[in-house]
Amino acid sequence: MILGFDVGGTNARALLIDPATGAISDRDRESSAGPGPVLLETLLRMIDRMRKHNNVELDAIGLGVAGLAHRSGVIHYSPNLPELIEYPLGTELAERTGLDVVVMNDATAATWAEGRLGAGRGSDDFMLVTLGTGIGSGFVCGGRLIHGHNGFAGESGHMVVDANGPTHHTGQQGPWEYYASGTALGQIGRSQAQIGLFPSALSLAGSVAAITGFTVAEALGRGDKEAERIFDGFCRQVAVGLANLVMIFDPERIVLGGGLTDIGEPLRAGTARWLDTLTLGGEYRPPVNIVMAELGDDAGALGAALWAHQGGA
Amino acid sequence: MILGFDVGGTNARALLIDPATGAISDRDRESSAGPGPVLLETLLRMIDRMRKHNNVELDAIGLGVAGLAHRSGVIHYSPNLPELIEYPLGTELAERTGLDVVVMNDATAATWAEGRLGAGRGSDDFMLVTLGTGIGSGFVCGGRLIHGHNGFAGESGHMVVDANGPTHHTGQQGPWEYYASGTALGQIGRSQAQIGLFPSALSLAGSVAAITGFTVAEALGRGDKEAERIFDGFCRQVAVGLANLVMIFDPERIVLGGGLTDIGEPLRAGTARWLDTLTLGGEYRPPVNIVMAELGDDAGALGAALWAHQGGA
Repeated sequence: MILGFDVGGTNARALLIDPATGAISDRDRESSAGPGPVLLETLLRMIDRMRKHNNVELDAIGLGVAGLAHRSGVIHYSPNLPELIEYPLGTELAERTGLDVVVMNDATAATWAEGRLGAGRGSDDFMLVTLGTGIGSGFVCGGRLIHGHNGFAGESGHMVVDANGPTHHTGQQGPWEYYASGTALGQIGRSQAQIGLFPSALSLAGSVAAITGFTVAEALGRGDKEAERIFDGFCRQVAVGLANLVMIFDPERIVLGGGLTDIGEPLRAGTARWLDTLTLGGEYRPPVNIVMAELGDDAGALGAALWAHQGGA
Repeated sequence: MILGFDVGGTNARALLIDPATGAISDRDRESSAGPGPVLLETLLRMIDRMRKHNNVELDAIGLGVAGLAHRSGVIHYSPNLPELIEYPLGTELAERTGLDVVVMNDATAATWAEGRLGAGRGSDDFMLVTLGTGIGSGFVCGGRLIHGHNGFAGESGHMVVDANGPTHHTGQQGPWEYYASGTALGQIGRSQAQIGLFPSALSLAGSVAAITGFTVAEALGRGDKEAERIFDGFCRQVAVGLANLVMIFDPERIVLGGGLTDIGEPLRAGTARWLDTLTLGGEYRPPVNIVMAELGDDAGALGAALWAHQGGA
């Protein structure tokens, strides 16, 4: 059996996985707070519990980590896990467990999982784009997962799409995730409610400050016309970045993941329409198929486990 | 022997290549003007001449074509070769010659050549970015050339970096090549000379209208202070797109090609400095090595020939 972890800014999630089938036989979750040595002890505790509780031998451990996770197992930089910077999490975990440990970016891991078991199945050229707090992405080209030289590939949420735009919390001007993340959808909803253009969201959330992307989604689900207008503008922003990636990668399929995918068909149809408009030479290209991710929050840990099973290559 | 073609908007260039060494034993050039059947006859004439003149048997033909060249050999769309749209150039050429013909994007082909014989040698993760009339690009990831699902990958000159920027001739607002191609450098030079801020270029070129990117480069070579200021701003624009691609691909190396590479060190150093500033988490990443392409105008035909030699995969 393989143990897959997804280490995010809030939680470390663990899945016990049969690598032959991808079947999940147990799961666990703990806070990921604290500096590297604390997180290491947390993971060791989870591993120990998982082993004893299921009475199994582990063959390997796969770690999907938010941020720049070097192939060597060192976390070089993670805005969501600032206490982990330059911490050799992979090496420490391998030493303490005696197992093979593979460390990779969480979105890269999730992409591999969707390709093997989820919405990327059957395609050798697809990309996963997750719309959540930020935007994450991963790429499979010619059947192979794109890691990059260091393992840092897939940070397309930081791709600048509006070089004279507002300054994002990353310090960049106009990166894609400023406009097209779940956080951005909430921000658009609040700014529209603030100036009186989104009364339905205000009544759903109770106050301007309480409006999030999910409020916009809820208003949209109720058929609210203002929500439809706002959401169409948001889909355009999502498609601006998708069109860039389509022109760079020429994928067969785009898998959308992250919290916003609960919106479903309006998100798929809205981004597909704008993508067609914004992709240069769109009339000469076979349309790119947009589908929703299938593995939800399990994708990162699943993908890291599957990757560890094949020896990290 | 393999015959490699590079079919651009003005010329079709042919190289006769020994695939074992990449050595070029003959070369030819004709106008690429005219609709598909006319270009086909041009290529057949060149092939015939090349065979007779060198008294060799050809094993295969590789075609690098500017635009969306489908793996099947059909040119779906090419802004520079508008008369070729939907023309099955590859199939026709294969039928008429009885040889295996591989059709691919010219920048993708050039990338492969630089990887095998030029400035990409020794790296499994690099990208080629050509700064000329527009911007072309190609990617090698994990040692493999990125084609995309249809063969259309690498169109990063069309990547939008300023979504509220001016409208480019492609109809897009603010694509990278609007700001960072050789054409853009000439445009910046003219607009600065127009308002009296670039007198040295005016005296070099004779008139505002005659100023090109090469004029700016010449003024730069003479140590002109205004040229240095203008060129630094241009290097920043080049780096905006490079930083996006670095965050997406995490390459080990960037190979700069196209006409502007004659500028040499000032281009390398200027883009490298801005790239470091504009790449998120730059202080935690190993620096990306920027080098100049080595194969010049031969890269496209060379790469297509090498690719054809290995059977197009």
